[in-house]
Amino acid sequence: MTIKAFAALSPSSPLVPFDIERRSLGSKDVRLEVLHCGVCHSDLHAVRGEWPGQRYPMVPGHEIVGRVTHVGDQVARHQVGDLVGVGCMVDSDRTCPSCRAGLEQYCDDGFVNTYGGHPSGRGENTYGGYSAAVVVDEHFVLKVAHPERDLAAVAPLLCAGVTTWSPLRHWKIGPGSKVGIVGIGGLGHMGVKLAAALGAHVVAFTTSESKRQDAFFLGAHEVVISSKPDEMAVHSRSLDLILDTVAASHDLDVYVAMLKVDGVLVLNGVPENPHPSPAIYPLLTGRRSISGSAIGNITETQELLDFCARENIIADIEPISMHEIDTAFERMLHGDVKYRFVIDMTTL
Amino acid sequence: MTIKAFAALSPSSPLVPFDIERRSLGSKDVRLEVLHCGVCHSDLHAVRGEWPGQRYPMVPGHEIVGRVTHVGDQVARHQVGDLVGVGCMVDSDRTCPSCRAGLEQYCDDGFVNTYGGHPSGRGENTYGGYSAAVVVDEHFVLKVAHPERDLAAVAPLLCAGVTTWSPLRHWKIGPGSKVGIVGIGGLGHMGVKLAAALGAHVVAFTTSESKRQDAFFLGAHEVVISSKPDEMAVHSRSLDLILDTVAASHDLDVYVAMLKVDGVLVLNGVPENPHPSPAIYPLLTGRRSISGSAIGNITETQELLDFCARENIIADIEPISMHEIDTAFERMLHGDVKYRFVIDMTTL
Repeated sequence: MTIKAFAALSPSSPLVPFDIERRSLGSKDVRLEVLHCGVCHSDLHAVRGEWPGQRYPMVPGHEIVGRVTHVGDQVARHQVGDLVGVGCMVDSDRTCPSCRAGLEQYCDDGFVNTYGGHPSGRGENTYGGYSAAVVVDEHFVLKVAHPERDLAAVAPLLCAGVTTWSPLRHWKIGPGSKVGIVGIGGLGHMGVKLAAALGAHVVAFTTSESKRQDAFFLGAHEVVISSKPDEMAVHSRSLDLILDTVAASHDLDVYVAMLKVDGVLVLNGVPENPHPSPAIYPLLTGRRSISGSAIGNITETQELLDFCARENIIADIEPISMHEIDTAFERMLHGDVKYRFVIDMTTL
Repeated sequence: MTIKAFAALSPSSPLVPFDIERRSLGSKDVRLEVLHCGVCHSDLHAVRGEWPGQRYPMVPGHEIVGRVTHVGDQVARHQVGDLVGVGCMVDSDRTCPSCRAGLEQYCDDGFVNTYGGHPSGRGENTYGGYSAAVVVDEHFVLKVAHPERDLAAVAPLLCAGVTTWSPLRHWKIGPGSKVGIVGIGGLGHMGVKLAAALGAHVVAFTTSESKRQDAFFLGAHEVVISSKPDEMAVHSRSLDLILDTVAASHDLDVYVAMLKVDGVLVLNGVPENPHPSPAIYPLLTGRRSISGSAIGNITETQELLDFCARENIIADIEPISMHEIDTAFERMLHGDVKYRFVIDMTTL
């Protein structure tokens, strides 16, 4: 079945209208009409070929929300008419130890990316949510419990949301925890909201004085301008967990020094160049860790969507039409978005 | 009270006989005759001023075993005649959150080092175990349950032993675990013995073909020459925990790649220069961590000594006389010791 989409035909070309084929419905498949799709930084990296192994034409988009239009004859979890979401994964091998443990995002064979992914045994290149419809195995389709009016602002929960939610849950953040969020962008603004909603004391770190007030509005209890050593020093040895969402190379030692004994600095961003080598002594003298975390598993993603519906949490977004995507990419490059562009897919 | 010791008078001078004062016995103090003292790499770094903040004269030695000769009037845990040990710590603030949690090694004020330490409120510089006797608060004195004939080979448990024991216990290593030990020296040889005794499957990593057979004798189930990529590749994504005992800068990425999802690479060594910056992607795509661990707390140290007495575990040592210390330092520099020099302190 042929549908409309927007695609990059090469790393140097802008996105253009492009017709793609969607597979016919398998017995476990759900087909959904895409209503909104978030614009993630990854989309830009991928479209421009800044990460290795990209294939063109490329249809980006992995913060997808929409309505179920068709279900396969063995689909149990979703019904026609349901509001649903699809995030960064559309499949995984389902048999490796990670998948059996419910950690699809760490699948030994690599999960199948929503776009630019390579389903095993099939030659195709997956196409993402900058399109009229997607067909996805029901296991990778999430239920949305938010009211329909919030649907566009739910889309970023599928990537930016769960990427910060997963480490907050894995490291058991709740009342009594003190959590740092480094970088107040797409990921970071969700990290602040979610950590605060989980009951933690939240310290937001930003380079930008202009974001101080915003960070308070998002739910931070304290805001630190990271270029000011006196503000930084206040939090020495006091944080249980820091989520570092900054996708640019920077000094990690100042953040390690803010961790309590057994504290963890979680890298959520992937800078083009590695961070400067972290000093060893601060790790040793407090059994501190530097760790990484990638998106979240399917169970966690559903848990996040349910939690956010219950707690009335959505992303702060700027809606755009499909034809504004190149302008949006340029603005994202300059950090000029609060905090996520979401494409109204009816403008396709 | 004046006693005999061996001291470095400056960073450039060899160790020489030197008389020191020991404090008179406080009510909680234990005085012990030092019978054996292990020679740790730290002793060499400290004596030669390779770490900042060293003070001279310096009497090294923090792997101390001996016999109790005097106890203060409020000492409850030790009696005259007991075989006991003292490790790297002789005090801590006892009031900070770490101390209250029984983690004296991560004391917020810094624990008081057995040598070169600065007890708060007193101007003195602590003197270590290259001496006839030490006076230590009973909380920092450990009971030795080994038979007396093994006493010299118990000394290294107080630093090399507990430095590997603590992370093995903290990360809950036991039957079913697969553990890597990188570097088969003073720390590493204990790490292999202890991990194996805890029931783990142990993989020893060494640069030296000559240590392959030794590592098997120590208890390793598999031995990998780390310069051979094909041997390394076998263990990709398979280890729960890696203790990296190498005190020289080296590539960490090859070890991170060997960790399972949620696996931890623990840095136990402190190289003079930092390791090359670790790649971020392997941390993210398996929620892997790089952590550090310093010695162990007092409860763990006692637990280790009791475990080793029960399991009949001692260090592999080469006994030396006090007057051989400079030769021993030179041999250590070239890795020419299997696996710890221990000074017979009756030769003082």
